[in-house]
Amino acid sequence: MHTTLTIETPGQGLHEITNQVHDAVGALLDRDTSARRSSLCTLFIQHTSASLTIQENADPSARHDLESWLNRLVPERDALFTHTSEGPDDMPSHIKSALTATSLSIPVLDGRLALGTWQGVYLWEHRVRAHSRRVVVHVG
Amino acid sequence: MHTTLTIETPGQGLHEITNQVHDAVGALLDRDTSARRSSLCTLFIQHTSASLTIQENADPSARHDLESWLNRLVPERDALFTHTSEGPDDMPSHIKSALTATSLSIPVLDGRLALGTWQGVYLWEHRVRAHSRRVVVHVG
Amino acid sequence: MHTTLTIETPGQGLHEITNQVHDAVGALLDRDTSARRSSLCTLFIQHTSASLTIQENADPSARHDLESWLNRLVPERDALFTHTSEGPDDMPSHIKSALTATSLSIPVLDGRLALGTWQGVYLWEHRVRAHSRRVVVHVG
Repeated sequence: MHTTLTIETPGQGLHEITNQVHDAVGALLDRDTSARRSSLCTLFIQHTSASLTIQENADPSARHDLESWLNRLVPERDALFTHTSEGPDDMPSHIKSALTATSLSIPVLDGRLALGTWQGVYLWEHRVRAHSRRVVVHVG
Repeated sequence: MHTTLTIETPGQGLHEITNQVHDAVGALLDRDTSARRSSLCTLFIQHTSASLTIQENADPSARHDLESWLNRLVPERDALFTHTSEGPDDMPSHIKSALTATSLSIPVLDGRLALGTWQGVYLWEHRVRAHSRRVVVHVG
Repeated sequence: MHTTLTIETPGQGLHEITNQVHDAVGALLDRDTSARRSSLCTLFIQHTSASLTIQENADPSARHDLESWLNRLVPERDALFTHTSEGPDDMPSHIKSALTATSLSIPVLDGRLALGTWQGVYLWEHRVRAHSRRVVVHVG
């Protein structure tokens, strides 16, 4: 079973999508209640300049520091870059995507994502401007 | 089918959990032998300051160097960090988790994890002190 | 359902395997057409000095820059390394593998991998010399 989420990101940063994923999984489980007790939810982002991560959802300062740290590790306008035609934020976006996750799998137990107490699911927009991003949600 | 492993880590570092995962998968397959020939084992760690990785299990010096390298890349007490209330090792732990894996999927063939000859499964504790960590093992 | 691909890499770099994966998935779906409409393809590389990634397959300069950037981040002959007996490119290979993916999951919709428009699947050879690499393809 699958569905596709369209996420409108406001620009670069970590955008929590836990609720959208939770709702999508709930709707899929309503169509096949046999998967409710134990199944697997896999998220797949159909882009190479945005990615997925699971991070602490309690204190926003942790996400702020994570973004700042990665921006410093992979700065724009690196003299090494030759792929510059799509803007200074494009090549850093590909690198950041390679260093994080394109797919994530989360067990579903008793109808709920088996996230830890402080875990949230995030779409990490690496481009500076707002984008429309597609995430395929598969439950099986 | 799923089960949850509780792993007591002695502190920061790569801790091999291949045997625990192997035993958990074996016990799950005993409950449903139809999954024995070909299925998929997914591991999910319910924390954001520890992660999962598959690494060489032959020579301990490779793991030692991997830890040293990542500790140098993500040092404590970075002037950039604002998320410091949980200790100097907390923010580096979140970054290291984002750069490695929260979920891992390993095919199960003929009742065994299809690991390569030199591959071992590791829980990577990023906090300095000992912690109790939960890893959900899903087979389906 | 599973099969194993053997990929002969010509040496260090990103080698596209999208077609091989597509063909393998097609052959597996021919054996069980019930999985055609919606299933999950998981790739698992049985090595710790090569990895998997999904990257832009349009402009080769993006992959070139990605390789150059990672080679600069993880150079050979780092004074920190003690694991040197297998050659100067071995320890960087393990680190690069830990920073990228050992397993990747891609939904299969209507018999096709649900890749985005610009996404390709790559085997990232981190060793300098040519290698024979095994990737398990699981569909379920």
